[in-house]
Amino acid sequence: MSQYTAPLDDIRFILDDVLDAQSQFARLGYADASPDVVDAVLEEAARFTGSVLAPLNAVGDQQGCRHDPATGDVATPEGFKAAYGQFVEGGWPGLTADPQHGGQGLPHLVGLSVSEMINAANLAWGNFPLLSHGAVEALIQHGEDWQRDVFLPPLVEGRWTGTMCLTEPHCGTDLGLLRTRAEPADDGSYAITGTKIFITAGEHDFTDNIVHLVLAKLPDAPPGAKGISLFATPKFKVARDGSVGERNAVRCGSIEHKMGIKGSATCVMNFDGAQGWLVGEQHGGLKAMFTMMNSARLGVGLQGLGLSERAWQNALRYSRERLQSRALTGPKFPDKPADPIIVHPDVRRMLLSVKALTEGSRMLAMHAGSLLEEAAHASDPAERERAETLVGFLTPISKACQTEWGIENTYNALQCFGGHGYIAEHGMEQLARDARITTLYEGTTGIQAMDLIGRKTAYSQGAGLKLLLADVETFCAAHADDPELAANVAALRARCVEWTALTTEILQASAADPDELGAAAHDYLFYSGYVVLGYWWLRASVAARASARPAAFKDAKRETARFYFARILPRTLAHAAAIRGGAGSLMDLDADSFGA
Amino acid sequence: MSQYTAPLDDIRFILDDVLDAQSQFARLGYADASPDVVDAVLEEAARFTGSVLAPLNAVGDQQGCRHDPATGDVATPEGFKAAYGQFVEGGWPGLTADPQHGGQGLPHLVGLSVSEMINAANLAWGNFPLLSHGAVEALIQHGEDWQRDVFLPPLVEGRWTGTMCLTEPHCGTDLGLLRTRAEPADDGSYAITGTKIFITAGEHDFTDNIVHLVLAKLPDAPPGAKGISLFATPKFKVARDGSVGERNAVRCGSIEHKMGIKGSATCVMNFDGAQGWLVGEQHGGLKAMFTMMNSARLGVGLQGLGLSERAWQNALRYSRERLQSRALTGPKFPDKPADPIIVHPDVRRMLLSVKALTEGSRMLAMHAGSLLEEAAHASDPAERERAETLVGFLTPISKACQTEWGIENTYNALQCFGGHGYIAEHGMEQLARDARITTLYEGTTGIQAMDLIGRKTAYSQGAGLKLLLADVETFCAAHADDPELAANVAALRARCVEWTALTTEILQASAADPDELGAAAHDYLFYSGYVVLGYWWLRASVAARASARPAAFKDAKRETARFYFARILPRTLAHAAAIRGGAGSLMDLDADSFGA
Repeated sequence: MSQYTAPLDDIRFILDDVLDAQSQFARLGYADASPDVVDAVLEEAARFTGSVLAPLNAVGDQQGCRHDPATGDVATPEGFKAAYGQFVEGGWPGLTADPQHGGQGLPHLVGLSVSEMINAANLAWGNFPLLSHGAVEALIQHGEDWQRDVFLPPLVEGRWTGTMCLTEPHCGTDLGLLRTRAEPADDGSYAITGTKIFITAGEHDFTDNIVHLVLAKLPDAPPGAKGISLFATPKFKVARDGSVGERNAVRCGSIEHKMGIKGSATCVMNFDGAQGWLVGEQHGGLKAMFTMMNSARLGVGLQGLGLSERAWQNALRYSRERLQSRALTGPKFPDKPADPIIVHPDVRRMLLSVKALTEGSRMLAMHAGSLLEEAAHASDPAERERAETLVGFLTPISKACQTEWGIENTYNALQCFGGHGYIAEHGMEQLARDARITTLYEGTTGIQAMDLIGRKTAYSQGAGLKLLLADVETFCAAHADDPELAANVAALRARCVEWTALTTEILQASAADPDELGAAAHDYLFYSGYVVLGYWWLRASVAARASARPAAFKDAKRETARFYFARILPRTLAHAAAIRGGAGSLMDLDADSFGA
Repeated sequence: MSQYTAPLDDIRFILDDVLDAQSQFARLGYADASPDVVDAVLEEAARFTGSVLAPLNAVGDQQGCRHDPATGDVATPEGFKAAYGQFVEGGWPGLTADPQHGGQGLPHLVGLSVSEMINAANLAWGNFPLLSHGAVEALIQHGEDWQRDVFLPPLVEGRWTGTMCLTEPHCGTDLGLLRTRAEPADDGSYAITGTKIFITAGEHDFTDNIVHLVLAKLPDAPPGAKGISLFATPKFKVARDGSVGERNAVRCGSIEHKMGIKGSATCVMNFDGAQGWLVGEQHGGLKAMFTMMNSARLGVGLQGLGLSERAWQNALRYSRERLQSRALTGPKFPDKPADPIIVHPDVRRMLLSVKALTEGSRMLAMHAGSLLEEAAHASDPAERERAETLVGFLTPISKACQTEWGIENTYNALQCFGGHGYIAEHGMEQLARDARITTLYEGTTGIQAMDLIGRKTAYSQGAGLKLLLADVETFCAAHADDPELAANVAALRARCVEWTALTTEILQASAADPDELGAAAHDYLFYSGYVVLGYWWLRASVAARASARPAAFKDAKRETARFYFARILPRTLAHAAAIRGGAGSLMDLDADSFGA
């Protein structure tokens, strides 16, 4: 089985040395988030995830969830429900929620680090509480007062969980196609009828109630995505006074058999005139949905990070233990029958790739988290807007890159195990199977790529990119003459110049041919991701140099930064060339000829 | 469930238009391999694999093999044994074997195409007969006369199967560590004692006997890999006169629970003084093993190809059927509720990547197959040596690239399905899980990379590379002024110049620091693979232009070549830069600091 210990040292390094999070906490009014409190929370999260959730990871994979067709009930794997009980008891569901709704009001950066640990310890389990956050956000921003009063406390405290019900069998990315109907009832509620699929945690045995946030169309809805409304549709009916009534007409029809995250219930949900309450404006569901989706996208990015971290820890351990062949430069451990495989350059190439992309992802994710905080709480409205633009730009990069790197990292970590990596008992193959969902749900990588080049770049004339590049240039200017960093600062600056040039080229080409946007999207996203990570690895080098942490830790940071610039950042060369390959190389082939 | 139809059109295109295989068959004395015969064999293989093996693919995944701890027996999934009966009845096991041993004497290129079909139809099933080929080769080249007489006919006819027993729990890549012992007995046989793991088809219910080719050490063996001998150790004892006796002291102790290829029995084999016969010279086992291994490596490369082809067919079908969103340039099918996703540039990027790497792999694999034929049957010894050097150089490229691309292709094909790709019923996730073994067994990708830069390049002063580059240059010179091809010919030539330069740089650097070989190995292998594929895609363009096949087929070939040069070949930029990153960026970090 794969092991897991929360990477507290690296989280602390990023919080304290890279991001100087305490200054932000103080500035944004988190009086309670003292270093001691933050540290105690992280320590306790490490204990809970390591000792309670991590051992259940293989159990969940082996047992899966079980659906009872007679009742529609879903039984979760052994130990999952009890672990959730401890989770609620520990106050974890409301860690970052507003105290007025029953939360503990800690900064988002702390909650994000706890999420990473949960994902690493047990991704499938983590999916049950995950979407409550989106539901809470949607209700806070779009719900009526009574809805907030009634739904928020149990969701925040974890007594109930939430879901996002978007997808239908014929309708995934293209929400305009959805068929679920909402008919107004006399009491101001709506009768929801339709079938939703791929509903994470749609049914389970953790809590007394489940609040489904369902996209549906009103009878007078305009066609397409503009005709969608959002409805809070609980498993047990909830009245305006908060009283919980009879079972609602919503039922889990079946659960999916999946490649991984087998302990997570992925449900077909049948709504058969279920009572739902309109959240937000009529036909305004898409806006409310985006509120949930942005939160969920950053959340899925953290899933990629969590799996990467667990993959890293196990690959490193195995590469130190497994004895096989001698170093090319002669025996390193002549007293042993062979050297540990960590002496071999190609094993190090894999390990350092995992380390660079994992710890880099952590900086990227935590930076996005700190921007969310600014966007929500900065006193200056201009600062809030700036942070919101920046985090909007970084969200598709964070989601897509962290999940694609999660797949690469679990691949490389498994590969370090050789044939043993393919065997279930080592647990590496579960990580690879679990990781495979993360580039699909909450918008595939292709959707993230279109979001970045379209809505977040073309639509806003590159506002997010400009803000980011200004930050990068400020950093580069400050370190351009630093003898240790100068070469990599120059390399990063050159990439930034090219990034701007590529952006201009794509936008110009797309004016004549809209397919140019789509043709460039994927490679533009990864070009962006590698440049952003280069920036963070330089910042990590600088932070490590100034840090009071042990020399071994600091050396590792600086050598990993060196590795990143020597062996990962050059991937931008291929992405830039592919972008310049243009749309013709994709679009000119007639669709009928593809298979001829 | 995923579907599969053998790609006869593309196989015929490569045989006839790209490789002009009929000329080779005639030249090398395959009088019977007329176009009609070859075509009939391929058609029948398509029928058998499509109608018998393909439908059992999901069955094998769901049921897996079952091991009986009381008897050591292994029961294969429902239908597997009956399918094997049909396979033997059809004469497929000995398709390319020498008629003197009971084979049909068809060219290797035909056998290779049949293997591709078997792998695509049902990889797990294909693993049962797979290793018989290596056993046959080892016995032909290294066995005594009586061993050939006794073992070859049943192996060639498929009445028995063969295995390769190399790996032990503590000993995978580093065979010098092995502990299995062989004690001489009075009758000239040896008593084999030890435990072997990861033995593909080590036990099953297909045949009456199984011949294990076991690596073990004689009592007077010198230490390390030079002290290994090879022994034919059948499940039921076989005497020199061919009579089959009692059960031998070899038994399957358990089978592994794996990520994929669940229908294939991966066995722990316990030898407890089992009677074995020395094959080849004492302490000469490694040489005999390499005979088996080269055949097995090209065979595993074909597994990557087969899975890629099946992934491709299903991704293409789904991308034409699935309606979601409108084309960026406006509705293409205004009468439908949305356009099929094949109109979206990013879906086309994924599809064309799969197509380019799959059909490119097929050319690479079939070229290697034609070289094997030359190496075995060319009348001129110099030609045989030339072919052997070239196929030796191409073997690690073929194995590693075709399997890594198999992983990429099954990834991209699954991704085209969105969330549905993650659900078992579509069958795409099985392909991804099955593909994951191929970069591990028969030498990981890292081992192939070291074989290429070490034994096949440094050790031979680049003999294989020089031969290949001469062929590529002959082609380029002939097409340098072709208006349609000139730009890509120039691009390919530039890569060849760089390839030579990189080779020189690596070998020079490694003279001072042997780690430079290992540090460059992976990126050098992929640099090589992408250049080789560029060569084949240009040859495909030329062949398509001259071909009498339908215009749609020819257009697709030429557009795919264009895509390859615009969007895949640029990956060499990143690999070249990574190679030039040098060993320091991998090796300077102290092993203890990795996890600090």
